[in-house]
Amino acid sequence: MSARVHLDTDIGEGFGVWGNSDEAELMDLVSAANIACGFHAGDPDILRRTTALAAERGVSIGAQVSYRDLVGFGRRFIDVARPTLVNDIVYQIGALQAFARIAGTEVTYVKAHGALYNVAADNVEQAAAIVEAVEIVDPALPLLCQYGTEVWNRAVERGITPIAEVFVDRGYTSQGRLVSRQHPDALLTDVEAAARRAVSMVTGREVTSVDGERTQVAPPEAAALALCVHSDTPGAAGMARATGKALLENGFRLEPIERSR
Amino acid sequence: MSARVHLDTDIGEGFGVWGNSDEAELMDLVSAANIACGFHAGDPDILRRTTALAAERGVSIGAQVSYRDLVGFGRRFIDVARPTLVNDIVYQIGALQAFARIAGTEVTYVKAHGALYNVAADNVEQAAAIVEAVEIVDPALPLLCQYGTEVWNRAVERGITPIAEVFVDRGYTSQGRLVSRQHPDALLTDVEAAARRAVSMVTGREVTSVDGERTQVAPPEAAALALCVHSDTPGAAGMARATGKALLENGFRLEPIERSR
Amino acid sequence: MSARVHLDTDIGEGFGVWGNSDEAELMDLVSAANIACGFHAGDPDILRRTTALAAERGVSIGAQVSYRDLVGFGRRFIDVARPTLVNDIVYQIGALQAFARIAGTEVTYVKAHGALYNVAADNVEQAAAIVEAVEIVDPALPLLCQYGTEVWNRAVERGITPIAEVFVDRGYTSQGRLVSRQHPDALLTDVEAAARRAVSMVTGREVTSVDGERTQVAPPEAAALALCVHSDTPGAAGMARATGKALLENGFRLEPIERSR
Amino acid sequence: MSARVHLDTDIGEGFGVWGNSDEAELMDLVSAANIACGFHAGDPDILRRTTALAAERGVSIGAQVSYRDLVGFGRRFIDVARPTLVNDIVYQIGALQAFARIAGTEVTYVKAHGALYNVAADNVEQAAAIVEAVEIVDPALPLLCQYGTEVWNRAVERGITPIAEVFVDRGYTSQGRLVSRQHPDALLTDVEAAARRAVSMVTGREVTSVDGERTQVAPPEAAALALCVHSDTPGAAGMARATGKALLENGFRLEPIERSR
Repeated sequence: MSARVHLDTDIGEGFGVWGNSDEAELMDLVSAANIACGFHAGDPDILRRTTALAAERGVSIGAQVSYRDLVGFGRRFIDVARPTLVNDIVYQIGALQAFARIAGTEVTYVKAHGALYNVAADNVEQAAAIVEAVEIVDPALPLLCQYGTEVWNRAVERGITPIAEVFVDRGYTSQGRLVSRQHPDALLTDVEAAARRAVSMVTGREVTSVDGERTQVAPPEAAALALCVHSDTPGAAGMARATGKALLENGFRLEPIERSR
Repeated sequence: MSARVHLDTDIGEGFGVWGNSDEAELMDLVSAANIACGFHAGDPDILRRTTALAAERGVSIGAQVSYRDLVGFGRRFIDVARPTLVNDIVYQIGALQAFARIAGTEVTYVKAHGALYNVAADNVEQAAAIVEAVEIVDPALPLLCQYGTEVWNRAVERGITPIAEVFVDRGYTSQGRLVSRQHPDALLTDVEAAARRAVSMVTGREVTSVDGERTQVAPPEAAALALCVHSDTPGAAGMARATGKALLENGFRLEPIERSR
Repeated sequence: MSARVHLDTDIGEGFGVWGNSDEAELMDLVSAANIACGFHAGDPDILRRTTALAAERGVSIGAQVSYRDLVGFGRRFIDVARPTLVNDIVYQIGALQAFARIAGTEVTYVKAHGALYNVAADNVEQAAAIVEAVEIVDPALPLLCQYGTEVWNRAVERGITPIAEVFVDRGYTSQGRLVSRQHPDALLTDVEAAARRAVSMVTGREVTSVDGERTQVAPPEAAALALCVHSDTPGAAGMARATGKALLENGFRLEPIERSR
Repeated sequence: MSARVHLDTDIGEGFGVWGNSDEAELMDLVSAANIACGFHAGDPDILRRTTALAAERGVSIGAQVSYRDLVGFGRRFIDVARPTLVNDIVYQIGALQAFARIAGTEVTYVKAHGALYNVAADNVEQAAAIVEAVEIVDPALPLLCQYGTEVWNRAVERGITPIAEVFVDRGYTSQGRLVSRQHPDALLTDVEAAARRAVSMVTGREVTSVDGERTQVAPPEAAALALCVHSDTPGAAGMARATGKALLENGFRLEPIERSR
């Protein structure tokens, strides 16, 4: 079974004096950078620096869009009305596009962050808002999301390309969602085991949940999968390196995410 | 003496529930809308609505960029370092560009707002930051500013087109700057007199200051002038209407502002 | 049936240059001012001015606390964790207390604003957060809320004094909640009818819903009721004036809200 | 020469998910905690936690007040009008006071942060604003500032107690100001030498500048000095520990800062 494989990470998530660790190492390892756009993290200086880091390495730039909630880091559901959420997302993508162009490249995909990512898995209105924002900004931008969610289905319905995102470092429920961070198996710490699981998700489109069930993470016909490593997971770089290596050994190259047409 | 004449206004300057008066009337009268981009005013819903209002009327859309200061409405000098100010401006222009594209049009010029406008008249670093932001985002965007200021000179030096902005409704010092709002002659209230003065500024490139001096507001060779009516001046629409009419009677058409190449 | 009667209004709800209408007229008519504390509206200058306006008139000062959401004016549910919501509320009350002291008076009660007010009617965790914040800041502060809600019950349980708030200018459901602003009978516009209904709510502790049902708005034994006039309802001052007059004619004096011990 | 000696540090300077390092170690070593109040850093959760940390150790709590500038961390001059600056400071102190009371203690002093600290050394209006805010909130709160500055003199003039603050870890100009962070001698890294210098500043009220000049850091009659260790200086805890030890060996106990009456 052949597919394009992307290794993506949330990045550029500091603000002002805070959280400005050196992200070059991680950027060296991934093929797609989900860059925070200023609503949950990221300020204009960080956007400038992070888009440049990505562009220099040929790493594709995705707009990591969020609720407007700096103090909560976008991790809290906000009951934003659909038209406002559309505009919030447009604003964030637009800002990032300017920096991508300055870096000599372009934004090639979109991913929701934090609570918005999770909520859009089930909430019809917010899922539709994300898809609508992509549609009106640039319908050729693929949308990273989990397979089988509300936002996935909505994207398909509206002709937006969804890319199945799977998580290298997180435990799954038998419904294919991430287990809560409180769960003892929330975080995979065995780097090699995680890398092997990542390869098996790419080849088999399934994962074994924390309850021992097999659950589907991508459709059989999926032309691409994105493997996410969280940059705030301890040892993220090691995890990304092992995953990239294991994929390579299995014949998969890490590729950037391209616009769909 | 022939010149393109633009009538511009600061617009879209509400935030959230606040300041959302009906701006359609004023938009009907001007040829260029300086739209707030979210740093001193303007939220994504307002950007969406205001760019649509402008696009529907063929009014050109300018990025009205500011210090990041909602509570102060961008009216207070902030000693922002030059690289940060460049990035702040890029971010704002980028966000507005996304909404302009959705409205089927594009951002065609830039104007600094409030304290940044005034500071850039003299402050070398901040003037350079504005010009640099335009240069890296889109060097074909003209920059509205006052003739003879630091930012004007910097734009010329860097190959950015400055457009001389003059103020229909405000008194001038003999140095060609606006008199403080505390001055009794700060605000012109006689609509007809203001309109006549506007025509004379276009034809003569000079204005009589509150001290009775003649002061130059545009270079003799200027190919374009922008006449600004403040939307928060009482009777702004009447002022804009009278000015447009007086210009027309003197053979000037109000034209949109176009990218310079 | 005797009770203390308060006439309260949400006030001080501008931000920066926005929404700073003259509120002195309304302040002359009410006995309790629910002053915004900066999280959904209100900046330090506005807090200073509004507390002074209240203090000069012997109007009691209540902390109108909210989700942290300026752009949404606190009108959107945010899924804030309980400990954070407690601290958000403490912060707001503390800031207002400083201004009340400067005005020579004190904060004497608390009221949740917007979405938080509505959510706390049913949401156990957020209701508990509001009550806990009052408890740790000053357990003698009464809490304005609707009778029979989760937050009312929680306050009673924790020994905080709830004051039954009723709405002069809004239609009620048969469950005693406000009908949505979309409903044709959402807003009462007949000032005299509204004033009569207000008196009847005070004397009978019931109101007729938009469906014609009688619904209880305060317990029979309630020692106090607060009648709320929304300052953004058109004709708010007229509504407040008529209500005050009708109450007076029926033997009720408008009284400030005092700390409970 | 006898004097009360305080060891103070800026603390609680994270925001949301950012900058929440363990501050207990440093809190164990100082006698006065300058706690950020939310305008340049600090959110309500952090205020709650940091005031508790201080209270548990008998460390006095000072309001570390700032310009309203999260993205700039209060490090950029903002030309805030005097009345607004007064109110901004009142708001911050009030919020912190609520948390201090909950922790069973009180705010006992005030210190300006970042650019405001530096600007108030020379800027008459902003110096006056700081002093006025203290005066109207609680004139018994001492103000930490540098000896001989505009804000020091203003405090004396208005009957507010200034406490001379000296810097354990920073180089001085011969004017008694801190040398720029760009200067090679900006930061003292030899912990023992810094501790010795600290003792000599307490006993001699002078310091040797980076140019070899002796400059006065406190008046001969000063009843108290505050020695500041920056929590973001690498090895801050080691610096604080060595300073405390050296002072003890020279007969000085680290004391909390008390209200002045």
